[in-house]
Order: sequence, then structure tokens, then C-alpha cells
Amino acid sequence: MAVNYQETDAGQLLPIGGIGIFVGQAGVKKPQHDDLTLITLDKGCTVGAVFTQNRFCAAPVRVCKAHLAQAEHIRALVVNTGNANAGTGEEGYARAVEVCGAAAKRAGCQTNEVLPFSTGVILEPLPAGKIAAALPKAKEADWTAAARAIMTTDTIPKAASRAGQVGGSHTVRATGIAKGSGMIHPNMATMLGFIATDAKISQPVLQLLTQETADMSFNCISVDGDTSTNDSFVIIATGKCGQQEIDNIADPRYGQLKELLGGLALELAQAIVRDGEGAGKFVTIEVANAQSRDEAKQIAYALARSPLVKTAFSASDPNLGRLLAAAGYAGVPFDENKLKMWLGDVLVAENGGRAAGYTEEAGQRIMDEAEITVRIDLQRGRESATVYTCDLTHEYVRINAEYRS
Amino acid sequence: MAVNYQETDAGQLLPIGGIGIFVGQAGVKKPQHDDLTLITLDKGCTVGAVFTQNRFCAAPVRVCKAHLAQAEHIRALVVNTGNANAGTGEEGYARAVEVCGAAAKRAGCQTNEVLPFSTGVILEPLPAGKIAAALPKAKEADWTAAARAIMTTDTIPKAASRAGQVGGSHTVRATGIAKGSGMIHPNMATMLGFIATDAKISQPVLQLLTQETADMSFNCISVDGDTSTNDSFVIIATGKCGQQEIDNIADPRYGQLKELLGGLALELAQAIVRDGEGAGKFVTIEVANAQSRDEAKQIAYALARSPLVKTAFSASDPNLGRLLAAAGYAGVPFDENKLKMWLGDVLVAENGGRAAGYTEEAGQRIMDEAEITVRIDLQRGRESATVYTCDLTHEYVRINAEYRS
Repeated sequence: MAVNYQETDAGQLLPIGGIGIFVGQAGVKKPQHDDLTLITLDKGCTVGAVFTQNRFCAAPVRVCKAHLAQAEHIRALVVNTGNANAGTGEEGYARAVEVCGAAAKRAGCQTNEVLPFSTGVILEPLPAGKIAAALPKAKEADWTAAARAIMTTDTIPKAASRAGQVGGSHTVRATGIAKGSGMIHPNMATMLGFIATDAKISQPVLQLLTQETADMSFNCISVDGDTSTNDSFVIIATGKCGQQEIDNIADPRYGQLKELLGGLALELAQAIVRDGEGAGKFVTIEVANAQSRDEAKQIAYALARSPLVKTAFSASDPNLGRLLAAAGYAGVPFDENKLKMWLGDVLVAENGGRAAGYTEEAGQRIMDEAEITVRIDLQRGRESATVYTCDLTHEYVRINAEYRS
Repeated sequence: MAVNYQETDAGQLLPIGGIGIFVGQAGVKKPQHDDLTLITLDKGCTVGAVFTQNRFCAAPVRVCKAHLAQAEHIRALVVNTGNANAGTGEEGYARAVEVCGAAAKRAGCQTNEVLPFSTGVILEPLPAGKIAAALPKAKEADWTAAARAIMTTDTIPKAASRAGQVGGSHTVRATGIAKGSGMIHPNMATMLGFIATDAKISQPVLQLLTQETADMSFNCISVDGDTSTNDSFVIIATGKCGQQEIDNIADPRYGQLKELLGGLALELAQAIVRDGEGAGKFVTIEVANAQSRDEAKQIAYALARSPLVKTAFSASDPNLGRLLAAAGYAGVPFDENKLKMWLGDVLVAENGGRAAGYTEEAGQRIMDEAEITVRIDLQRGRESATVYTCDLTHEYVRINAEYRS
């Protein structure tokens, strides 16, 4: 079902020195099914992390924040699917800590050196005992197995690697995995994303890099406009590449590393949209020449959220008035007579109406494609933003009506 | 398909003195089909009107605003379906004026004493000539016929009447019609609403009354979160009831009239949601004890717009974490431990998690109903808001994927 996305071959995923991967079966929701992942970090790694902005942030997110504040080093990440441990109050917090305790035993570290992550149904108690019991039995695995074990409604595991020169002679490697296909909207999606790199980078600089990387990848996607309670994105830097530490953003290697990790994160983020629940099309929305990046994003997201726009894509119907209408209600006071809109390479709208040369056939030709780019030029500034989304299909409704059954 | 809504009997719709109604067939999109409505106003009527906030406001909306500013009295309203005359630039404006000219001839008034309204597909040129040719042939009709002639994807015509005491001995009558079932979100929906009353009220006071009435009715509904280019709501006061004019809001009759017209407008607005595209359920979302009405509305609309919440209603699935998650990402900094949420009479959430006494069976019992009320108490202020919405179904996707074919 995913739009132009296939599983990455295991052979293409680079192991990252200093990282251990283990996968297990806790039977949280389904038996005989890998639903538990443990990632261990050698001593000396640094970790950056960003989390959901949802007021109902899940218990594991709150525990992550506490442990990141308390512990000098993070030594393990533990991830379960099948239950989000969200909307579970103080009892939920205690259960997330219980899982950290069991993971710490397995990893040989302190409880507060573990970061927990959960994804799945909300408002139900986490079976922490099952997870704790399964952790000692978790088996050593590779990135492919981890990418599979963190899936929920995903149809394809999402993983990618990059290797590149950072600071002249040194090759830096990075491998990432992600999951998510519904409840996907920026800040952030029901998504988990984990990237490990062997670069060496100080904790505060890595934290900034993590935020910047999220802003250009996972915070530019929308499947259904719903922001989850559990979204988390983590970058682990193991320092095993043998370089000197990057300890400030003026270091030219910072920009090189950001480009490397940004490309990787964007590939994973786009994979989430390509595998969006029920997605039949992959849609890129570019808004150019806005007064600020925020207002460009605001318009791009109005299109990306609009059920009418998304059903038009689903039907391959060049009902382009819906796109203009969505831009118009985004809340940005642009001059509608200056706005230009293209569908692919076809100029659709200008001077407040349909472009003179536009034909239904030209619009139809673009709408028939599986990957569609909409470009809007506001002609009111110099800032721009790009957002990635998918169409709204019968399949989306079916998946989400039947999710718990 | 509509949820607990049936066509109002013609006999229950009160004629309003001073108003003439005519219906015709212009063949804008389909032949042999009433798609044209002319409402004439005797001399001495006052008119209040509110319009879409969309930047791409349609040509007829721009003409309405110009005519309301220019003309001393409005003498006719002309409405076509099948084409929205939106995203049509200056040519679209000229065509809307051309239609006004033809309507003025039929009504015996000046062109700028006519308000035009269009609803239908966006970005296509309005066949103004067809409409102009059909106007002389339009036949005298009643409110029922007008309610039918303004329908697009509506499955049921929407009309209602009220009569009540305003100012002691006087009975005031009001009759309204409305259309709209998709692209429905406040400020306003793809909706047209027209109410005529025989009350006598000065133009500036009627304009305020129209805004207040819209705020408590048409601006409290959402079908799909899309705000259209053409939304318009008009109140006509003919003054034929024989009362002295209401010329300030301190007049106790202002409040009485507001209650009468507000109830009528809310019935019409709710009818739009009940007949929302593909709607299988009618959902009321009440948010209480917020710091402001705006933040209460913000949370209510986050639920009303969420595809995950709407598909859960569609499936009668008490997947209530989705409701909490939507409240959480609405952007209001409430204390999640203080929030309480009820589904019908069942307490679902408190203290940051599922309520102790909640059972799946109790939730299921409410979710199985066709009319569902969600109540959220924020415990952070004294303001509240109520929003009406429907579920998101396969049928919605089908209707909107096939709309133009």
C-alpha cells in the first residue's frame, strides 16, 4: 500500500559502534510477535531528544524528561508497542519506571539511565509486568528487526543509513529507524524516531541538532492532523568514529553533520507519510515567498489537513478550488490577486482566479500521478516552507474505525 | 441519511409579510432542476449580513459587501446553485453584477439593491447568461420550494419557523432556510442561511443582531473543518408586524428577538450538521469552565476536526484516548490532571487518566447512540462553548471523491 516505499535491505543498514540492539516478545497486545525493543548505549554516548507538545503527554514521555534531567548518561532505550501508556495518570508513570528498572537490569545500568517509549492504544493500563518479564529474554538483533518491532499500523518497517565525510578525513555513519502512520501531525506525530550516529558531539550541541533536525523532517509531515501523546525523536551520538568532539555550532562539522542527519531524518519522515494510513498518494506542498516560515507552514498545513483537498487527491480529481479555499482560510492575510498556484508544472491560478492557459486535461495529467507537488507563491516575502502529506481514502476510515478490534 | 432530521412540512413554515419568493431553472449544472431562487423585499425592509472570512471570498460575496455599502435599501436576494463563482477574478465579479442586473429587472429595483449568492463548484466561470435568461421565467413559490432550490449536496431541505411575543402584545414571526453539508467550519461553512422576520429593527442594530445570531449558531458547527469561499448569512426584517422600530440594543425587545431568531438559526445550523456529508451521528461537544469562550471553542473544535475522533464515532468505538489526545493538542495550556471528561452521563477521565469507575460497556452504550454528547470540564475558569459536529464515514470520502463527476 505504501507510496513508492519499500523496506530497506538489511545489508544497507550500517551498524553503529557503541550501540546494542535487542528485540523481544512481551505479548502486550498480541502473542508471538516482536513488540519490545531494547537499545543499549556504551558509556560516553550523548543523547538529544524532542517530544510531543500534547498536554496529555504520555507517562513514558514524562519519565524520559525526568531521566534526561537526572542522569549523567543515558545507557538504554526501551520501546514497547501495543499500549501507549498515555492518559494513565500516576499509576502509568510508576509502570513506565518499572519498565525502566527491568531494562536497567538487562543493560547493567541505573533505572534513571533508561529512556522508555510506548506506542499503541491510549487510556489503557500498561502491562509493565509482561514487559519486565520479557526483557531478560530479548534477543540480540539488528536495525531491521528493531524497525519491525516498533511498528503499529505501519505496513512497512522504516529504516535508513547514511555515511559521509564530516570534518575532512573522517567518515561518520548514521542509522535511523522510525514508526508511525496515523495520528501524524507536527509537534510531532504518533511517531517514534531513533537515529544513532558514531559522531562525537557534546550533549547541549546534540540537543540543538536534534531540535533542528526534527524541524526539517518530522515536524514537516501530516497524515491526519492529529498530534499524538507519545511522539519522541532521539539522536544518539556514540563518538566511536574517532573524531574530536563537536562542542559548538560554529564548528564547520556541525553543519556537515546536520546535513547528513537531516537527510536521513527527512527520508524516515517521508517514509511515514508514504506509509500513512490508507495513503494512495504522496503530496508535497511548497509555499514560497511568505513573510515568515511560520505563515508559509500555516498555509501548507491548511491544505495538508483539509479533508476536501485530501479526498480530491484520493479521487485524482483536479478540483483545485478546494486547494485555493484551504489557502484562503489558513488565517494569513495574503493578497489573493498576487497568489500563484502550480500543480506539478502546470500553472493553475493567478490574478485571483484560474490561470488563462489552464486546462482540465493538464490538471488531470498531474492528479493521475502517485506523487504530486503543489506549489504556492504568495509574492509577499522571502520565506518558504515545505510540508509532506498524503491523501484521505476509504482505507483510512476503515483502518481507524477498526483499529481496536 | 440525515441524523434525526426530516423535512419540515410546508404548512409549518410561516409566510412573512413583505417577502416574495420565486424559484427558477437556469440549468447552471443540471437541466430541469430548480437551481435559482429570487427573494424580493418590499420597500422599508432592513438587512443584516455576515460573510466568510476566507481570503478567497467569492465574487458574489464581494458584490454583496459593495451593494450593502452603496444602496440605501436592499430589494432582492438572488441565489444560484451549481457554481460558486469563486476563484474567478474580475470576470467573476462582473458576472455576479450581471446577475444582479437581471434580478433587478425582475424585482423592479436598481442593480445595486440586489444581493447575489452562489454555491457549487469553485474556479469555474459562472454562466451568468443562463441565470439572467431564467430570471424572468422564475415562478412564485413558497419557503419549501426555496429551501429545495438552494440545496447542493444536501439530502434534505432545511427550513424552520418561529413565532413568539416580542414586546408584550406583538407576535413576531420568522422563517429561515439554509443549505450546506460539506466544507463546513465556522467563519463560516459552505453554507447559505436566510432568515426573514416581520420584526421592525433599524439597520445597524439588525447588523449586530445578525453577527450575534451567527456566533451562537452557524459559527458553532463543523462537518469537515473546511471554511468555504461563499458562506453568507442574512437576516431580513420587513417591519410588517406593526411594531415600533427596535433601534438600540438596550430595548428589552432586542433580547427577546435575539432569543427567537437565535433558536431558529441554531435549528438550521444543527440541521446542516445532521445532514453533514456522510454523517451517521450527531455529536455535541461542550467545553466548560475555560478561561475564555475562545479557548473553550478551540478545544471543542480540536475534537470536532480530528479525523481520529470522528472515525471513532463512526465506528461506535469508545476509543476515548483519541478525544483526550485531541484536547491535549488544541493549544490550550490546561492542567491535564484537573480535566474531567464525560461521554453522555458516563465519567470517562479524571486525574490525568481513565476514571476509576469507567467501564468499556458503559462507554460502548453511549457510543452506540446516534446522538452523542461529550462534555469536558477544564476547571480553570468560568467560560464555556458548545460545538456541533458529525462523524467521518466512508460515505464522506465517497461523496467528496465523486463530487464533480
